[in-house]
Formats: sequence, C-alpha cells, structure tokens
Amino acid sequence: MALISDFDVIDVRFPTSRLLDGSDAMNPDPDYSAAYLRIGLDDGGSGHGFVFTIGRGNDVVAGAIEALRERYLGRDAEPLLADLGAAWAELVHDSQLRWLGPEKGVMHMAIGAVVNALWDLRAKREGLPLWQLLARMSPEELVGLVDFRYLTDALTPEEALQLLRDAEPGRREREAELLRAGYPGYTTTPGWLGYTDDKMQRLCREAVEAGFDLIKLKVGADLDDDIRRLALAREAVGPGIGIAVDANQRWGVDEAIDWIRALAEVGPLAWIEEPTSPDDVLGHATIARAVAPTPVATGEMCQSRIMFKQYLQAGGLQVLQLDAARVAGVNENLAILLLAAKFGVPVCPHAGGVGLCEAVQHFSMFDHVALSGSQQGRRIEFVDHLHEHFVTPVVIRDGRYLAPTDPGTGAEMHESSLRNFAYPDGPQWRAEDSRVRAG
Amino acid sequence: MALISDFDVIDVRFPTSRLLDGSDAMNPDPDYSAAYLRIGLDDGGSGHGFVFTIGRGNDVVAGAIEALRERYLGRDAEPLLADLGAAWAELVHDSQLRWLGPEKGVMHMAIGAVVNALWDLRAKREGLPLWQLLARMSPEELVGLVDFRYLTDALTPEEALQLLRDAEPGRREREAELLRAGYPGYTTTPGWLGYTDDKMQRLCREAVEAGFDLIKLKVGADLDDDIRRLALAREAVGPGIGIAVDANQRWGVDEAIDWIRALAEVGPLAWIEEPTSPDDVLGHATIARAVAPTPVATGEMCQSRIMFKQYLQAGGLQVLQLDAARVAGVNENLAILLLAAKFGVPVCPHAGGVGLCEAVQHFSMFDHVALSGSQQGRRIEFVDHLHEHFVTPVVIRDGRYLAPTDPGTGAEMHESSLRNFAYPDGPQWRAEDSRVRAG
Repeated sequence: MALISDFDVIDVRFPTSRLLDGSDAMNPDPDYSAAYLRIGLDDGGSGHGFVFTIGRGNDVVAGAIEALRERYLGRDAEPLLADLGAAWAELVHDSQLRWLGPEKGVMHMAIGAVVNALWDLRAKREGLPLWQLLARMSPEELVGLVDFRYLTDALTPEEALQLLRDAEPGRREREAELLRAGYPGYTTTPGWLGYTDDKMQRLCREAVEAGFDLIKLKVGADLDDDIRRLALAREAVGPGIGIAVDANQRWGVDEAIDWIRALAEVGPLAWIEEPTSPDDVLGHATIARAVAPTPVATGEMCQSRIMFKQYLQAGGLQVLQLDAARVAGVNENLAILLLAAKFGVPVCPHAGGVGLCEAVQHFSMFDHVALSGSQQGRRIEFVDHLHEHFVTPVVIRDGRYLAPTDPGTGAEMHESSLRNFAYPDGPQWRAEDSRVRAG
Repeated sequence: MALISDFDVIDVRFPTSRLLDGSDAMNPDPDYSAAYLRIGLDDGGSGHGFVFTIGRGNDVVAGAIEALRERYLGRDAEPLLADLGAAWAELVHDSQLRWLGPEKGVMHMAIGAVVNALWDLRAKREGLPLWQLLARMSPEELVGLVDFRYLTDALTPEEALQLLRDAEPGRREREAELLRAGYPGYTTTPGWLGYTDDKMQRLCREAVEAGFDLIKLKVGADLDDDIRRLALAREAVGPGIGIAVDANQRWGVDEAIDWIRALAEVGPLAWIEEPTSPDDVLGHATIARAVAPTPVATGEMCQSRIMFKQYLQAGGLQVLQLDAARVAGVNENLAILLLAAKFGVPVCPHAGGVGLCEAVQHFSMFDHVALSGSQQGRRIEFVDHLHEHFVTPVVIRDGRYLAPTDPGTGAEMHESSLRNFAYPDGPQWRAEDSRVRAG
C-alpha cells in the first residue's frame, strides 16, 4: 500500500528565445518549457514526468495533466505500478478523453507525462534506471505493456515476442558494454539558424573536438544561405564527420525534393530531417523515393505508434526519431521500438529541449541491450541546453552518452529550478519582465 | 472599428449517458458536451463557436480556448473579419502553439472554435447564413482562405481556382433549388448500440416514415449481435432504403476485413464507417481494397486537411465525413471540400452530438452551390438530439435539411441552455448530482 498523496503540476519555462538557442525554420523564438508533473506517495517516494513545449500553450498542457489529478489522488500506487500496461490502457482508452485526440495532441502528451511519472516511480522503487529496468524484464512482460489493437497488420504480439526472445542471448554482455562505453551521440548544438556563421563554425569545431562524429544543421529558410552554411560547416568539421540537416517541416512535397537535391550536391547528407508535415506519411514516402540515397528522418512530432507503423510500411522514413514526451509515455515508445526492430530501421531519438536527452537515452540503451542489439547507424541527439536543471543530468564523454546508473527515468528537476522558472510568477520571469520593461 | 469586448468560454454538458443516446462500440457512456465560445463586440454584435466533446476533458478544451483570450480582447474585429485567411494563419501557424499538435488535438480544435466564431460574426454582419456567404464569394476570395503548404502534391491553388470557376455557372439556380427543396439527410437516430431491438426497429420504421432513405447502425461490439440487428433493421425499413454501418474505430485491419465481409453477406451496405483508427490511412486503404464494393467512410475524427489529402491519395475512403468542430474551422473545411472535389469523392458530413447538424449543413450546401454542384451520393447526417438548445435549430422535412436562412453559422446556443447545463455548477448538473446521490 502506497497512497498517492500529491499530484503537483508546474508550468516551468526558460527564456531561451532571448539567445536564439533553438531557432529553426519554423520555430523562430522558442521559450523551452515543460508542463511538469510530480506524483508524491505517502511513503515519501516520488515520480516525475513532463511534456516539453516551446512556450505559449504550456499552460494548456499543464491544465490537461491537472484534469487527471482527481483520478489519482488518494489511490494506491502499487497495483498501478505492478501492471503498467493496464495503467496505460486506463488513460489512453478512456472513452471520453479519447474524443480529444484520439491519441494525439495536448491530451495524449498529458497522458504521456502521467505514464512516465508512474514509470519513474516504479524504476525508483526497484532501484534501477529505466533502461535497465526494461532490459531486465522478460519478453512476455514487455509484450504485455504494449497495445497491439491497431498494429497487428504490421506487428503481432507473437512477432514482438520473437524479436525480444531472439535478443535475449547477450543481454548481460551488452549491458556491461553499455556501462563501460556508453552509447554514441550526435549534436545539434552548432546548427541553429539564429547563429552567426562564425559562431556556427566555432561550435562545429568544438563538436568535433568533443568527440562527436555527426552534427546537424537547421535548414529551410533560404536555399542559398543553406548551401553556404553547409559548405562552411563541412570546412569546419573536415572530412569523415557526418552532417545531417533538419528542415523542421518547412516544405511541401515538391519543394522538399528540389531543395534536398540542391543541398545534397554540396556533399552527402547523413539524413534530411522533417522535410514536410509530420502528418504526411505518403508525402515523406514520395520524398524518400525521390531523394534516395539520402535517408529521410522524422518522428519528433509523430503523434503515435499508429503513425510510425505507417511510416515504416510506406518507406516514409529511414531513420526513426522517437520522442520521449510526444506519445503516451514509455509503453508507446516500447511499441515504436518494436515496430522499428521489425522493419529493421535504426532509431535515433529526438532530444534537446528540456530534459529530452535525460529521457530518451533510456530507450536507445534498452533497445541496444534487449531488442536490436546494435548501435549501427544509431545515435542519440545531444544539445547542450538546460541540463543543469535536472537532478541526474546526462553525462557525455567523447561524444557518447554514458549509461545512467541512478534509479528512475531521468525526468526529475531540481526544486530550485521549478521554483525559479515557474511561469509567470517565478523570480526569473519577474526579472525577465523587468528586463523587457527596461528595454 | 468594432472592438472585441468579450471572449467568454463556457463548459456546457448534457447528461446524455443516462439515456444511452450516443452509445457505440467505443463510446459506451458519452455526455454530449461543448466547449463553447462567445466573442462579443462593443457594437453589440456577437459570434459563437464551439468544440464538441463527449464529457471528460471538455474543461481541457475550454482551457485551450481561454488561453487565446488575451490575444483577442480589446482588438479591432474588422481587420480580422476582412481577411479570415490571415486570421486563420495567425492562429494555426503560431510557432509556439503549433508545437502542441501540430494541427491536431485539443489546441487545434480550440483554434477551430475561435475561427468559427469569427466566421459567425462575419456572416451575421453580412446578414447571410454561412453557406450563402461562402457560395457568393469569388473563386479568388475562396482560394485565398486556404493554406496550400502541405497540399500542393495533391491540389494546387490554380487547380482549386479552376474547380471553383468551373462551378460558377449555375450558382444562382442551385441556390434557388436549395432554398426550395433543401439537401438530403440520413439518420443515425435508430442505430445506437444501447437500444433494445424493439426500440431500434420502431425508430427504423419512424425514420422511413419521416422520409429518410438511408439509416445507419452502430456495429463492432459483437458480430452475431450485429448480424441479427442488421437483419432486424432491414426487416423494419424494407427494401430500397440504404443501411450504413459504423464501427467507431473498433477493429484492427485484418479483423475489420473479416467482420465487414460477414456483415455484407446480410445484404449490401451503403458504407462501412470508421472500421479502424482514424490515423491509419494505409489501414483504411487496405480495408477498402479488401471489402470493395462496400465503400469505406471516415472523417469525423480526422484531424486535418493533410490527413484527408492522404486518405484521398491512397483510396482510404470512398465517402468523406468532415466534421465542423474537429479541424481548424471553416477555412480548413473549405480546403477539405476542395480536395474531395478534386478527387471526385462525395462528402457526407458527420453530425449529431451538440450542434454539429446546425454547423455542417452549411458545408454541404456551399459545396452544392459553388463547388461539386451535385447532391449525388451525398447526405448530411442527422440525429435528433439537443437541437432545442440552439437559437436557429436545423429544420428537417421529408428527410431533407431545409436551407437555413438566418444569418450566421448556426452555432449560437440559447443563453438559458448555457446557464442550465453549465458544468459542474449549472442547475441541471446540481439536480443530476442529487439524482445520483438519491440512487
């Protein structure tokens, strides 16, 4: 028995727009934010989850999480944590809430935050980081966490079970290897559109010196400018370093094809990311066929396992970029990893933002130990922003994520950060207001 | 100059779950609800819009609409109303809000309510019902209301313009014909799963007597039960009346195919509606190929023009069921009608719920006058629920929607209804609480 005594939701925002960190062709002035949830138990335990947003509307997501408070306050957490498949289904299949999506947008992300907070609780109670908790579960237990209703034309429970069983030999060795050597990352730190050429080139060189072998540049605002920046980046990193580009959904299908072909003439691209709307599976498939061999990557705004299923069926992506805070939490990301494994497509999770690096590393590491068994063509995105606000921030060494060993999902933020950056009344935002008024 | 002086959001809910009106295979106990918006001007004018939901979460949508209040209060409505294409883009392309979808779920529907309230204002100021306002606009003006960014691989602005120009001859005659004879409807009133066989058969006979030539039954909970009810419905309506069936997303792809083939053996189906997830374009296409010639219908939970584009490209639907309160308002529905016209697919809007009949009739009537020019294979759904709460309720005669002549979009509710059914503090809900407590 462990009663849920607190269900606290905090709107926390960081004034990143001031520095143009995070600027791209579609998002000129983001204020990286989180609708943050802390579930507290009467035994003193706590679980943390969040939805990442880029500013306005963070209050709407916070409101959606708050709308779930009544369901949990005073409830015994133990049966929830003992069957997280059922806990997931209770939320996602709530017939009235389902109408608000279904399984997409604000309500779906809010549900994801709750699911992830429950996983954080469970991992802490078991004393394991999430990746290790998952990687030590039996194939049967893992399959029981996934809802196959709309997936069976691509992946049946039996096939999922087989994939996990096939990866059982070597689990222990791969876990040891991860703890020793970590998992490769790549960095987007140099590539934001708002940076000057000098700053971009300096950051490119620093990325290579820091051990990364793949960097990513934002593109899509102006073709000539993109070509120039791509050439400058190549000059800065030298040969042998991969360069991916990211259009953040800027183009229509035909425009994307023309633009990507022009960019690919500067030199091979590691991938082209989000060439068009994340809802346009068929558009991505058309683009992928037209720009091959340049791989197409997408996923950070892909709403659900059902969309990823179609992306894989249609050949709309060759690099799958799941996100920790877009879909309905750990269970849905497990489904997405299983789909990727079935189709043999590498997963390179989306990160950056607030806490996404801390969160997504667990999925790649679980996948390595217990599912794909491979790091080939796989990288975890890294952006060097806002890690200081997390209790167990990621550790990067020689361009690799070190395997986290602290219990939990990595989502927990410092109380002081939550207090200082609470929106709109935290001291940092009051200071920001004074700064703006002072001109 | 007409300043926006009010931006009032009301959470209004009707205790429909008590009567099992609206019960289907996925929604056993809906309380039909609306997150309702009233925009008031300082000249006394008002515009109304809403999002339809089925209960829990209606507060979350209301919160999302409220989050837009600050943007509008005190602003001059006239430039907004003069360029509703720009007013739409300002909301839908807001880079920070966009992160919450993009273009899907709670925030997208909230934006739709605001867009529709602005259209209601405009139509009232011009003294025209929405369908007539749209049907009298020039093709250029109509095309200017639509965002083509993610559509051009299926429909270019030039093609849209040509479709509208081709339909210009005869606009006046078709408008007069609509005013004389109305537009055909079909009814779902008999078909809810919660009804007894006797009630269902009685309502079937009443539907035929009321002049409808097409009815719809809910299916998907139990195959034997569905087959029995389908036979009973056929017995009640006699030959020559169409029967459509609606699974409300109950099935996976393979299950859908088996189930539909079994149902079709009872007799030809007018269509099978929502066989699987509304996000599964490719799944619908697979089903449509397998169950032909039974047409597949979907759309009431289709999130955007981008999804409809793919449904049409892939052959995932043969009957397009747009909804008035799911996408970003009138402008997006105009895009969807243009796509349907380009692909030659009939539109049979989703209605029922709260106010959806009042709202969607305008799209079918506009389409008839100024776009497809046809009523062939087209019907507007009708459910006889909750119309009494609207200031200008739909009028049905001999199974046909009479063309509304009151200015506006039809969204305005009676003040007394908004007051009585306000949730959770309106008198009806206080009475409902007493009823529940009394057991």
